[in-house]
Amino acid sequence: MQIEQVTLASTPQGKPAETDFALGNGNLPDVLQDGEALVRVIALSLDPYLRSAMAGRHLSASIAPGDVVRGEGLVEVIVSRSTRMAAGQRWVAACGWRSHALLDADAIAAARPVATEIDPPTLALGVLGMPGLTAWAGFGKLAQARAGDTLVVSAAAGPVGATVGQLARIAGCRVVGIAGGPDKCRWVTEVAGFDACIDHHDPGEGGLRGGLKRACPVGVDVYFDNVGGDLLLAVCEQLAVGARIVLCGLIAHYNGEAPVPLNPGLIIRARATVRGLVVYDHWADLPRMTAELSGHIAAGRLKFREDRSVGLASAPAAFVRLMSGHNRGKALVIL
Amino acid sequence: MQIEQVTLASTPQGKPAETDFALGNGNLPDVLQDGEALVRVIALSLDPYLRSAMAGRHLSASIAPGDVVRGEGLVEVIVSRSTRMAAGQRWVAACGWRSHALLDADAIAAARPVATEIDPPTLALGVLGMPGLTAWAGFGKLAQARAGDTLVVSAAAGPVGATVGQLARIAGCRVVGIAGGPDKCRWVTEVAGFDACIDHHDPGEGGLRGGLKRACPVGVDVYFDNVGGDLLLAVCEQLAVGARIVLCGLIAHYNGEAPVPLNPGLIIRARATVRGLVVYDHWADLPRMTAELSGHIAAGRLKFREDRSVGLASAPAAFVRLMSGHNRGKALVIL
Repeated sequence: MQIEQVTLASTPQGKPAETDFALGNGNLPDVLQDGEALVRVIALSLDPYLRSAMAGRHLSASIAPGDVVRGEGLVEVIVSRSTRMAAGQRWVAACGWRSHALLDADAIAAARPVATEIDPPTLALGVLGMPGLTAWAGFGKLAQARAGDTLVVSAAAGPVGATVGQLARIAGCRVVGIAGGPDKCRWVTEVAGFDACIDHHDPGEGGLRGGLKRACPVGVDVYFDNVGGDLLLAVCEQLAVGARIVLCGLIAHYNGEAPVPLNPGLIIRARATVRGLVVYDHWADLPRMTAELSGHIAAGRLKFREDRSVGLASAPAAFVRLMSGHNRGKALVIL
Repeated sequence: MQIEQVTLASTPQGKPAETDFALGNGNLPDVLQDGEALVRVIALSLDPYLRSAMAGRHLSASIAPGDVVRGEGLVEVIVSRSTRMAAGQRWVAACGWRSHALLDADAIAAARPVATEIDPPTLALGVLGMPGLTAWAGFGKLAQARAGDTLVVSAAAGPVGATVGQLARIAGCRVVGIAGGPDKCRWVTEVAGFDACIDHHDPGEGGLRGGLKRACPVGVDVYFDNVGGDLLLAVCEQLAVGARIVLCGLIAHYNGEAPVPLNPGLIIRARATVRGLVVYDHWADLPRMTAELSGHIAAGRLKFREDRSVGLASAPAAFVRLMSGHNRGKALVIL
């Protein structure tokens, strides 16, 4: 059968451009092999790590020119010859940027069912999916935050950052976000309920460091870093003794900028503990995370925002917006 | 009374030179105030952190031109008007590079008594003193090493590194040292009993990274870093998943070289935990450390080496040797 798909036309240089992608047609075999399933893609998840994979610098496999762009999506099973999947079910699976996908046994083994109570089901790509699990595991298992701690989180308007900050608020922390632009900062404080949010485009007197000092006058106890770059260095300069840092993402470097030193002297001075987080280690906790965060959402304690574009053809532009920081919440493409 | 003392003549540029120091005379008041004590210096401890203090870049106070060089020593009390000290006792105290020192109430409060069983008493400046406590606390409380782990330690022939490695051997780790020159490496493997030692002056094929790969074919589980610099980066490139890093010292930077990036991407990839160590936090454990390490020494399981020079006038040259890596073991000046 003929399907629609988006391939990588060329490896992006710096920030990706729409011309780095090509919309076209592909073919899927009409007959399934044993163990395979055919799915229709309902929604694609756009995630910054894909930019890193396009540069061949991510833990996961590379995405090379000519490849259909990888990525997970919310899918509906059309035909299944797998004992794990049945027609009509909804799953999160590695479908790629396609209208339909043929999942092999490995892809089916790695897929995750979407409980019917999850409403809207796209939450399984956001706050109840990989970004939510990243936030939940990073905050709950690595950050060791205590009530009264000042926690700073970057990319605070994104699905990981916003969830981390709200979990920290629930745990009794004072929470300071860092986000780009007044609209994001307003959402972070007014909707997500952070105590403060620093606009890294316009941090006020003394730049980012001045903004951090005003927002965290007695230092930073916990830093949840989604960004890397100079932001990481600036926060390290203002760590309180005994600080904890969770290194979760390096958005500042995904577009290709050189890494900024994480100064070991600052880590020593603060007797800090720095931990690297890879969400793949925590899939076994998905049900626990889903139950816990669903409860917070139902109780109105956990807010989220989806940035939806419509049609597979809109995926390149939506990804360019994401990598330029112009998305508003979890970036999704609804097919 | 007139005493001998060494002052800092000029702030060192790069590696210190003997001409950065001046030997001269000073005066101490002939009458003690209440709460003070007069001590004779038996031995001075030379430590790399003093170079950092001379540059004004250490946690502790700076050492400026004209100041008597700071530093701790093994001292004997001559006259005391403090209730904490009595004439004839031996203490480790912040005496500075002097033949005699007047200790005020603060210095006396911070001083540590030397038990008569400690033999030679200079051990209270080395493996049973600050370097020993650094190694004991860093290994025992921060590194979380398990039997079977591959532990790498830099400055492995120094009092901290050698003690860390031997504690790790006792705990069942495979231990790889990094040291400068064949003489140090031989001592590390043949006397201190490390499984291997990489000579960073001559690491063989593939440079330091090649040497590390050969010595740690399945990666580094624990890295105890006394050095910083490119060595830290090279080890980070070869971390095993779940690795732990203790950041203890930055000898590579003490002479003024620019810091080398600690690449956050490598920390994330390895899901590593990085902890900063400041020995000052662990003084309360001194008696426990002393008891434990004394036992190891008595049983022949813990070796140490002292690098003694004689006479206060030899302190500048000995310090220059230390900061050039030419010392052999704990650097001491015997008065």
